[in-house]
Amino acid sequence: MENVIVAVDAMGGDNAPVEIVKGAVLAVTENPKVTVKLVGIEGVINEELKKYEYDKERLIVVSASEVIETGEPPVNAIRKKKDSSIVVALNLVKNHEADAFVSAGSTGAVLVGGQLILGKIKGVERAPLAPLLPTEKGISLLIDCGANVDARSSHLVQFAKMGSIYMENVLGIKNPKVALLNIGAEEEKGNSLVKETYPLLKECSDINFIGNIEARYVPRGDADVIVTDAFAGNVVLKLYEGLAMTLLKKIKGAFMSSLKTKIGALLIKKSLKKTLASFSTEAHGGAPLLGLNGLVVKTHGSSKAIEIKNSIIQCLTFKEQNINGIIHDKFDLGKE
Amino acid sequence: MENVIVAVDAMGGDNAPVEIVKGAVLAVTENPKVTVKLVGIEGVINEELKKYEYDKERLIVVSASEVIETGEPPVNAIRKKKDSSIVVALNLVKNHEADAFVSAGSTGAVLVGGQLILGKIKGVERAPLAPLLPTEKGISLLIDCGANVDARSSHLVQFAKMGSIYMENVLGIKNPKVALLNIGAEEEKGNSLVKETYPLLKECSDINFIGNIEARYVPRGDADVIVTDAFAGNVVLKLYEGLAMTLLKKIKGAFMSSLKTKIGALLIKKSLKKTLASFSTEAHGGAPLLGLNGLVVKTHGSSKAIEIKNSIIQCLTFKEQNINGIIHDKFDLGKE
Repeated sequence: MENVIVAVDAMGGDNAPVEIVKGAVLAVTENPKVTVKLVGIEGVINEELKKYEYDKERLIVVSASEVIETGEPPVNAIRKKKDSSIVVALNLVKNHEADAFVSAGSTGAVLVGGQLILGKIKGVERAPLAPLLPTEKGISLLIDCGANVDARSSHLVQFAKMGSIYMENVLGIKNPKVALLNIGAEEEKGNSLVKETYPLLKECSDINFIGNIEARYVPRGDADVIVTDAFAGNVVLKLYEGLAMTLLKKIKGAFMSSLKTKIGALLIKKSLKKTLASFSTEAHGGAPLLGLNGLVVKTHGSSKAIEIKNSIIQCLTFKEQNINGIIHDKFDLGKE
Repeated sequence: MENVIVAVDAMGGDNAPVEIVKGAVLAVTENPKVTVKLVGIEGVINEELKKYEYDKERLIVVSASEVIETGEPPVNAIRKKKDSSIVVALNLVKNHEADAFVSAGSTGAVLVGGQLILGKIKGVERAPLAPLLPTEKGISLLIDCGANVDARSSHLVQFAKMGSIYMENVLGIKNPKVALLNIGAEEEKGNSLVKETYPLLKECSDINFIGNIEARYVPRGDADVIVTDAFAGNVVLKLYEGLAMTLLKKIKGAFMSSLKTKIGALLIKKSLKKTLASFSTEAHGGAPLLGLNGLVVKTHGSSKAIEIKNSIIQCLTFKEQNINGIIHDKFDLGKE
């Protein structure tokens, strides 16, 4: 089994640097095959690291003096802030001083930086961001949720193939079911993009295309890979988060409505918390940005140490399974 | 105050004719200003009506010998089945023998029938289907969820205006907040359709445009009118329904996990049920199909008698407030 070196953006996300540094410490402590390069403002990181005992050979601080904020226009930020944690960390991956990059920082900057600094695998038209969604049956990959709005059908076909490779090799799902997000089950339904994409997916012999999926059946887990353009993908991902939050608030309100319900709530609390934790979009580590010359994982802006740790350790499987190599073979040499 | 005559599709929906007929009886019983024309196979309807006592002058059966099934291609069905309940009922509206049409039947057939038989108000480019979504604050109008995929920016501007008129006049929300569904808050975010639409909405002096809304904040109720093309709108509506169902299943699972939780569940059950009922997408009657020469309301395929009753009574406000007249003035004579 190989080792993995992960460059981690110590300055990115709502809880940086505290939770990021903690997550990095947890990762190297839990898994001896993981080395972390914590990238960011040295003084700040070292101050945090003082709190912990850890293997200093496998947790190294790499200096980056600038920080890209969430609100900054991504292209400008990546071009101008050459010494930002995101740019420095991506350059570590580019120069083979790290195998992967994990960030909870600006999604736009990570997407743009990944494409500009690492570049796309030859043959890959667009690099999709692919988060995992919790479902009744387990998890599904939603591909794309990135910045690729106004996608073309050829992009969606590539997303389907990359998503299928990811679910099969990283998540271990044999022959993953691939479906196209649409407003009806029938082939002739939908907007011009999905109508154009459907027959192309049907022709793909290397994926298990099961047809259209309505948004209603996404939470039920009817498909392992849900193919969509980034606009609709973003709507699904954000609504998942927002609606779950609203429903929980409503449920809490019901629990507090009388003495009787308060007592009932006490009896249920623990079991309910456990159930709902398994259904959080944050429970399954970060979202890979697929199709790049190097591995990039974007975690939630609100990530805590556990998610950072999971995202770092996830990179080990990604490297071991040689996902980029498989995508490379399929899209460059193995082009159909 | 006026009276209203509502043509009801007795044959449409999963629970037809039983629940439809019951809903019609409830409507005329509850509100003396409502007259219902129940359209469908006479023998079947009369058999159901035998169960009830009702004012026979305000509940009239109109014969239609054919039924359009949910799976049928809508355009063909409307053209060929001239004696179907949908076509006959829409003709009642067209010929001013009814003020409105309510159906729980095939959405496609109702949309196509409405446009072909009633026609659009002059100046209206497309007729949007606009369901109400439950939110933390109350309800929001999601416009469009119909068949208008591949919408243009001018359509979205019209949807914004029609939605605003509806919320102000039917729901009584003063100066309703109108937002554009997008993948970020900033004006420059999104696909080409929303980027083109944003500045057009900003220029509209007759609506209260508050900018973009991310799907995450739809359930929180940040906007009264959510403007979107039918593809994304359908994704929002269907995911709302699917995710709520899945979360409830999960919660029920947590309730049943031990004796302790089962006891807790007993104490909470009633309060929770009440809370969640207020958050059902089915709790707020049907979705109007706006912009037509006549009022059409589409209710859920799974509608029970209560929803049918609510949808019928809703037509009274719609008529009293002269929504079609207002839309007509704005889009035809009052065109900007």
